[in-house]
Amino acid sequence: MEFRDVGEFGFIRRIQRGCLVRPDGVALAIGDDAAAFAVPGGELALVTTDLLVERVHFLRGAASPEDLGHKALAVNLSDIAAMGGTAREAFVSIAVPGDCPVEDVDGIYRGMRALAGEFEVNILGGDTTGSRADLVINVAVVGAVREQEMLRRDGARPGDWIFLSGGVGDSRAGLHLVVEGLPADDDGLRALLRAHHRPRPHMAEGRFLARSGAVRAAIDVSDGLSADLAHVAEASGVGICIAANRLPLSKHLAAFCRRFGFDPVAYGLAGGEDYVLAGAADPAKAPALARQFEARFRRPLYFIGEMTGDGRMTLVQDGKQRPLPSGGWDHFPGK
Amino acid sequence: MEFRDVGEFGFIRRIQRGCLVRPDGVALAIGDDAAAFAVPGGELALVTTDLLVERVHFLRGAASPEDLGHKALAVNLSDIAAMGGTAREAFVSIAVPGDCPVEDVDGIYRGMRALAGEFEVNILGGDTTGSRADLVINVAVVGAVREQEMLRRDGARPGDWIFLSGGVGDSRAGLHLVVEGLPADDDGLRALLRAHHRPRPHMAEGRFLARSGAVRAAIDVSDGLSADLAHVAEASGVGICIAANRLPLSKHLAAFCRRFGFDPVAYGLAGGEDYVLAGAADPAKAPALARQFEARFRRPLYFIGEMTGDGRMTLVQDGKQRPLPSGGWDHFPGK
Repeated sequence: MEFRDVGEFGFIRRIQRGCLVRPDGVALAIGDDAAAFAVPGGELALVTTDLLVERVHFLRGAASPEDLGHKALAVNLSDIAAMGGTAREAFVSIAVPGDCPVEDVDGIYRGMRALAGEFEVNILGGDTTGSRADLVINVAVVGAVREQEMLRRDGARPGDWIFLSGGVGDSRAGLHLVVEGLPADDDGLRALLRAHHRPRPHMAEGRFLARSGAVRAAIDVSDGLSADLAHVAEASGVGICIAANRLPLSKHLAAFCRRFGFDPVAYGLAGGEDYVLAGAADPAKAPALARQFEARFRRPLYFIGEMTGDGRMTLVQDGKQRPLPSGGWDHFPGK
Repeated sequence: MEFRDVGEFGFIRRIQRGCLVRPDGVALAIGDDAAAFAVPGGELALVTTDLLVERVHFLRGAASPEDLGHKALAVNLSDIAAMGGTAREAFVSIAVPGDCPVEDVDGIYRGMRALAGEFEVNILGGDTTGSRADLVINVAVVGAVREQEMLRRDGARPGDWIFLSGGVGDSRAGLHLVVEGLPADDDGLRALLRAHHRPRPHMAEGRFLARSGAVRAAIDVSDGLSADLAHVAEASGVGICIAANRLPLSKHLAAFCRRFGFDPVAYGLAGGEDYVLAGAADPAKAPALARQFEARFRRPLYFIGEMTGDGRMTLVQDGKQRPLPSGGWDHFPGK
């Protein structure tokens, strides 16, 4: 069935089941001029929004509709995680070409609802409309955080340890497979594809880091690690020194790079769409933070370098220092 | 200069000046992973979002960039007005084709900022990206309202008077000029064009109606008066009876219809994009409400019919009753 046969209101009825997973505090969900809900007393509201456009951010057919829905929501949840906040309400705007099968749009919402349900996020509203050429999805997420716990970009100080809440580079390797049309013919390549299509927002990790009192700045890794750390460095007025051999690079990424002749460090630094959290920890509290993180999440909090007072971006590799390329996507070699 | 020459971050620097017009309560504006701001204690947060797609909702070149920016924000403010709320923060996602002049995008933001400034709405964030074909704008607006003042769609009762906060039909007449490429060669036609390109959200009117204690349901007229009142009727479980001769139709619309041979009542009922407020008022309080409205706004609050207990949609015209077509855009004659 095509989207134009269902119509806007028929479509809203199709998708709204299961959208409200946490009714407390919600006065109005889908169906009025606006959604209405309470923000917990004493907390700040957080709002983030991301726009995904076909042929720019995704190719229809390269990812399943469920993957696309998952990712459209995940990238927004990741922004809330990077603030140390709790995600609460999501608003989904979608522009659908008339010839797009309505089952595909159902699939997008299925992927979105599954992820939303997992993190107790309500889908409370949005907008549904047609499009002449490309499928377009805009998701806006409202969250909340106590002001004193909020993780901003601008609090890093020289001497702070730079942390990462997970590995980097896998997603970019998965994208390479998609763009080049290479078959994912072993478990390692399938894991890379999954890292690209199904990023897991580090919500619990973000809350843990926010409550710790040890973290001075944070960001989620979306543009690429070096580009995102450059945002933190610029906002905080500090420099950055990263040790290449400290980067958490998966064995799947290593095997991929051996097989196709790429540099895993470049993938780690400039890959993008990793959706792990990076930032700056108070050096006096960092060792205890790492222990507590590992006890809680059963995997390490990685320390990959430190914030410096010289304002420069530096990479230490094989005993040599060289300027750290700050570019993310735009400067990816071979792009 | 083309958008692709400026880049995302260069572009953000271009547009962010003047976006923060009400700094109190705002902890983080443009520049971090999310915006952070306080919601006034005891109020509900309201969120609405609208997605505008080139060749579906607008034609580049038919409206000025400033008009486009104005309207993209205005339609969202109107949704907050229809809830009886105060609009506070706006989030603008925009996907721009590479060949789009960056001056056009500057113009879109100029139109948006001018309207935002007028209603003390901060533009606190959003997303900027490329597009392969069409210009796409998604605006999300966060507002606030006291729960007991909130104007929902589902509170109308049989016997309530149906009100309108302004005239209907002008915008659809303006659209006719745009779509047919007709020149706006007199002041009346220019007024119709302006009604289409520069709708004024009824923010103060919405707050007035919300505080009055006399209004039981409200909606903004976007799909067309009969379609929007049908939403209220359905949500409230009531019927509707409208008197054609009570519809507030402008002299410009009357002249347009005489000149081009259209029925002004059809334009009023099915036009759409009027962005006035419609709804149901307690009949015991309606006359006083109308007097207070006129004293405050120097123009009438129109009463055009009443909510009924029979569940039907009825139009009274020339002494005869006939079914009121509930369709808006989709059923506009000749579309």
